[in-house]
Amino acid sequence: MKPIKRRLLTPGPTMVPERVLEALSRPTLYHRSPEFKEVFLQTRELLKEVMGVKGEVLILTSSGTGAMEAAVSNLFNPGDSAVVVVGGKFGQRWEELCRTFKVNPIVINVEWGKSVNPEEVKRAVEENKGVKGVLVQICETSTGTVHDVKAIGEAVKELDDVLLIADGITAYGVYNIPSDEWGIDVAITGSQKALMTPPGLAVITLNHKALKRLEEVKERAYYFNLKKEVKQQQKGQTAYTTATNLVVALNEALKMIVEEGIEEVAKRHSLLAEATREGIKAIGLKLFSEKPANGVTAILSPKGIDGQEVVKVARQEFGITIAGGQEHLKGKIFRLSHMGYVDQFDVLTALEVVELSLYKLGYREFKLGDSVRAAMEVFLKGG
Amino acid sequence: MKPIKRRLLTPGPTMVPERVLEALSRPTLYHRSPEFKEVFLQTRELLKEVMGVKGEVLILTSSGTGAMEAAVSNLFNPGDSAVVVVGGKFGQRWEELCRTFKVNPIVINVEWGKSVNPEEVKRAVEENKGVKGVLVQICETSTGTVHDVKAIGEAVKELDDVLLIADGITAYGVYNIPSDEWGIDVAITGSQKALMTPPGLAVITLNHKALKRLEEVKERAYYFNLKKEVKQQQKGQTAYTTATNLVVALNEALKMIVEEGIEEVAKRHSLLAEATREGIKAIGLKLFSEKPANGVTAILSPKGIDGQEVVKVARQEFGITIAGGQEHLKGKIFRLSHMGYVDQFDVLTALEVVELSLYKLGYREFKLGDSVRAAMEVFLKGG
Repeated sequence: MKPIKRRLLTPGPTMVPERVLEALSRPTLYHRSPEFKEVFLQTRELLKEVMGVKGEVLILTSSGTGAMEAAVSNLFNPGDSAVVVVGGKFGQRWEELCRTFKVNPIVINVEWGKSVNPEEVKRAVEENKGVKGVLVQICETSTGTVHDVKAIGEAVKELDDVLLIADGITAYGVYNIPSDEWGIDVAITGSQKALMTPPGLAVITLNHKALKRLEEVKERAYYFNLKKEVKQQQKGQTAYTTATNLVVALNEALKMIVEEGIEEVAKRHSLLAEATREGIKAIGLKLFSEKPANGVTAILSPKGIDGQEVVKVARQEFGITIAGGQEHLKGKIFRLSHMGYVDQFDVLTALEVVELSLYKLGYREFKLGDSVRAAMEVFLKGG
Repeated sequence: MKPIKRRLLTPGPTMVPERVLEALSRPTLYHRSPEFKEVFLQTRELLKEVMGVKGEVLILTSSGTGAMEAAVSNLFNPGDSAVVVVGGKFGQRWEELCRTFKVNPIVINVEWGKSVNPEEVKRAVEENKGVKGVLVQICETSTGTVHDVKAIGEAVKELDDVLLIADGITAYGVYNIPSDEWGIDVAITGSQKALMTPPGLAVITLNHKALKRLEEVKERAYYFNLKKEVKQQQKGQTAYTTATNLVVALNEALKMIVEEGIEEVAKRHSLLAEATREGIKAIGLKLFSEKPANGVTAILSPKGIDGQEVVKVARQEFGITIAGGQEHLKGKIFRLSHMGYVDQFDVLTALEVVELSLYKLGYREFKLGDSVRAAMEVFLKGG
């Protein structure tokens, strides 16, 4: 059977709800019009609610990496130091950004798939001079691993000089993260993950501590100039033309999250992730991460099977796009996303395509359907 | 987990492909414009290809029942007789239409769920005077049963006076039916089934024998006047305003069918149906039909379980709409559709929701996941 449908089960972009696609396709608004201003300001308020912040929320027209760059280039002077947690490809990105913008990265290397010890972060901050921030992922998407940012926040909260900057690109909309409460000074996310919107928008929050820093740092960014953006966005404007249709779409997606309830959304993701993990274990496969995330599950490809082949068969034979590994994990793992607009049946579909693809590749060391049964049991127990 | 998605697995309306929804939402065309004329004429040609006819194809703005009415009111004079196969709700509809339009129905009652014996149809035609037609379903949707219309066609083909009128509303786009070859003089279908388009359009074909009859019968229909429609539609017009956006959508859907290949489409449906049946049997449930169709599977609700409750739990707890039984089958059966824009994973989802709903209702006389395994095995064997 040739695939007649395409299903997107990658950790970004993710599936976009019909309601959001409808919003996306409404007539384009002029970015300086009162109608757009209203949508824009409301979207900022919705983001504050979903991200648990009371300070500033800025919407940037870029991928999530743009917001990461904005954080580094706007909140650090050249020569400042930052403690950087590197436990995967996106930790590496923090490090690369530091080097690009002449920030001295004090790297805590964490074995990929493991979670950083918050004590180690605290020590690194204390033992090094001139540390102005901690750069970390809430979820390291490349390995499907959660870092305990709440604990890091507790360790760093009292240090006025140190900003906790958290990349929550695959965490906001998956977990209920009260960012202010956790001591996250700068939170970053993107439209194309659990916020259920197509790619093209990034979000960066700034609390009072971060806003103070913004004033102290010598301006060097142009497109990603957060000082300019704060001034404009408070008025419902943006410094440069923003992706208006995407903002309208994001507005709709955030309303869906608020309507479902952030607590409910988090519970759903928790159940979907548990079902995925139990399913995978039930067919004898191993999870790659020691502290698996609720938005994406990384799975060790079984012995003799190239993870990239699993991805290829899933796409070519079954029309389903799952993700492979990145960097040195290429071929070793594959990843199933269950973030955003995902329900039980999408998770079961993901497990089915893993089983079917492995069978097609000649790996049959499990009984067909066992991952589906295990996941269904989780769903029945979970209510 | 509250359902966040709605999935439509009923035997009409069925799921509409994104491509067709996009076509549907294009700006409305004037029904007398040259642009629309072109789309309309092309749609008629595509229908001829998909339905295997060389004669006339008329598109009516109505449900499928409208085309059934058009057949009875345009092709029979009051007092004529018609042999009517009644093996379910839609057979009954033929009978009711006959009575409404003063056609004398010679009813062959077939136990619901069973397939008519073509010999019996032949005998009824031969033994009764003034029989001008045979009215039958290719697939009786209410019971998920196929009638052997090919064999009936062979029996009736040589009788110049007798039209074989086949309701193929859930058959065209499921099977490859070379209507002319099978001796179907008048074929009927609707947009909202395997033609993957929203409800609102019906189709009726007329071969030379039917066109001749149309000339002989005294006109009595107004909206469903096929003589007027033949004249108009040959020119790319319709007698009355047609549902232009639906025609544009149907055009796109038919292109998808032709692109996939009618043979391939039929093979896909055959595999999907087989997997559904094997899945259902693997959890100890029974198929209702003795000759199950490839578009819809009717399942006997297990002892002590009201089929309507299965439907209700599936919708309320899991967001999935399946169909219950009709008339005296209400509560006794439920029906899973696998026609149109459906692939393996939709079938697996349907089986999962049956299993989960039965478990929720306290029926646990099977091992969770067993239907999914059986269906997956069919898919692996089927390629």
